[in-house]
Amino acid sequence: MIDCGEGTQIRMRQMDIKTNRLGHIFISHLHGDHVFGLIGLISSFGMLNRTADLYIHSVPELENILRPQLDFFCEGLPFRVIFEPFNPKTHTLIFEDRSVEVYTIPLKHRIASSGFLFREKPHERHIIRDMIDFYKIPVSMIRKIKQGEDFITESGEIIPNEQLTKAADKSISFAYCSDTAYSEKIIPIIQQVDCLYHEATFMEHEAARAKSTLHSTTIQAATIAKKANVGKLIIGHYSARYKDKNDLLEEAKTIFKNTFAAEDMKSFGI
Amino acid sequence: MIDCGEGTQIRMRQMDIKTNRLGHIFISHLHGDHVFGLIGLISSFGMLNRTADLYIHSVPELENILRPQLDFFCEGLPFRVIFEPFNPKTHTLIFEDRSVEVYTIPLKHRIASSGFLFREKPHERHIIRDMIDFYKIPVSMIRKIKQGEDFITESGEIIPNEQLTKAADKSISFAYCSDTAYSEKIIPIIQQVDCLYHEATFMEHEAARAKSTLHSTTIQAATIAKKANVGKLIIGHYSARYKDKNDLLEEAKTIFKNTFAAEDMKSFGI
Repeated sequence: MIDCGEGTQIRMRQMDIKTNRLGHIFISHLHGDHVFGLIGLISSFGMLNRTADLYIHSVPELENILRPQLDFFCEGLPFRVIFEPFNPKTHTLIFEDRSVEVYTIPLKHRIASSGFLFREKPHERHIIRDMIDFYKIPVSMIRKIKQGEDFITESGEIIPNEQLTKAADKSISFAYCSDTAYSEKIIPIIQQVDCLYHEATFMEHEAARAKSTLHSTTIQAATIAKKANVGKLIIGHYSARYKDKNDLLEEAKTIFKNTFAAEDMKSFGI
Repeated sequence: MIDCGEGTQIRMRQMDIKTNRLGHIFISHLHGDHVFGLIGLISSFGMLNRTADLYIHSVPELENILRPQLDFFCEGLPFRVIFEPFNPKTHTLIFEDRSVEVYTIPLKHRIASSGFLFREKPHERHIIRDMIDFYKIPVSMIRKIKQGEDFITESGEIIPNEQLTKAADKSISFAYCSDTAYSEKIIPIIQQVDCLYHEATFMEHEAARAKSTLHSTTIQAATIAKKANVGKLIIGHYSARYKDKNDLLEEAKTIFKNTFAAEDMKSFGI
């Protein structure tokens, strides 16, 4: 999960999201709309008798804020809450498991703020069953073949991997950049991601306000998407002054056509 | 406002409740489902440039929990948050203004918990315009006449108040009792209130669980209502195990007919 504003646990229930699959929460920055839902979420997990560790990745200060609340409201929690502090000023690998890597993306906001880049690790190649049978390749070798190795027959003949496998599925990447002012420094980091979420708090005519509050406009978000050559852009974090999200979406599309507008409880495929 | 669970500010927006009319919040006890919405509500009030003081009435510990969050997340708040601690073990007047008095109601729960009794002060009597004109009663006297004084004419004749006014509107009273186990000690305090909200976490067949968790059953809530001879009973705070509130309502009604079931965003007249 990325960020956890007030009401997150309520939305999760409404959307029937399986909470026990959630192991890691990445917090971009310590403004209330990104963290006020944590204590309620954790408290409810406790009542649901969760036992799996829950990791919270954030700037170091969050533990000082949340720990006293956990001690007071969540005594006897049946699982551990583990704080994993990161430095929001550097682009660093902060998490990986066997299928994904997560990197910070330094952003430009009123307080220390970090985006997150999620990059799937390369998938294994697909074996061509007929060729495996033809060369009588033992089961113990299959894993390495999937990972790209050639096969050497008993007679010493080298069978190139390309004859035994088909290309792996594409690894997917997603970048989340909020809250942030327009910053071209993030472009090399998010270059060619399949999907970019970039905040677009304001319409372009409020560019001065975007600058002073260190937020972005629709045009700025779309410009970043275009310059980074991403697959698709999702905008969000709209100022409450805009009643119709469509105005923001249409403005962003003038720069980057493949733009979509985030909405409460809306899902996007990548 | 009584209690402030997570998502309260969201519900207020959905129900179009005017937030600047809210001056006092009464917190029954420090379990998360009664307080986790406070920080978000206060934070949003700050962004809406509220300037009026906000009073929070609760046990003293709340300030220790909330103050560090206010300092961190709500720096430069344009209004004051004033904590008004009370002792939840005594039945005491904790607030009054020209129209209402608020009293604590000691409850029986796992942690210190207090209900609240809201009692409107007596309304003024309605003047009978024709009689006022007939006796040429000066405007400066009207307020006192409304408050029940007799009028003395220039010739010294005493006109009894009953000839000049009609009875005042009934003053309304409301008692809120949650979270609590069954406790007959509250009956004298809430005797004959117009409306009683009493928690009914469990159906009667879970009476053992109600006892061990210090909550009430439907039958217990209704028994309190009956013994206190209240006008109407609203039950709520149902365990998530019950999919159909109607079962709880019907069970309560077997003891106290004028019972209603609280639901998210439902309003009740008193």
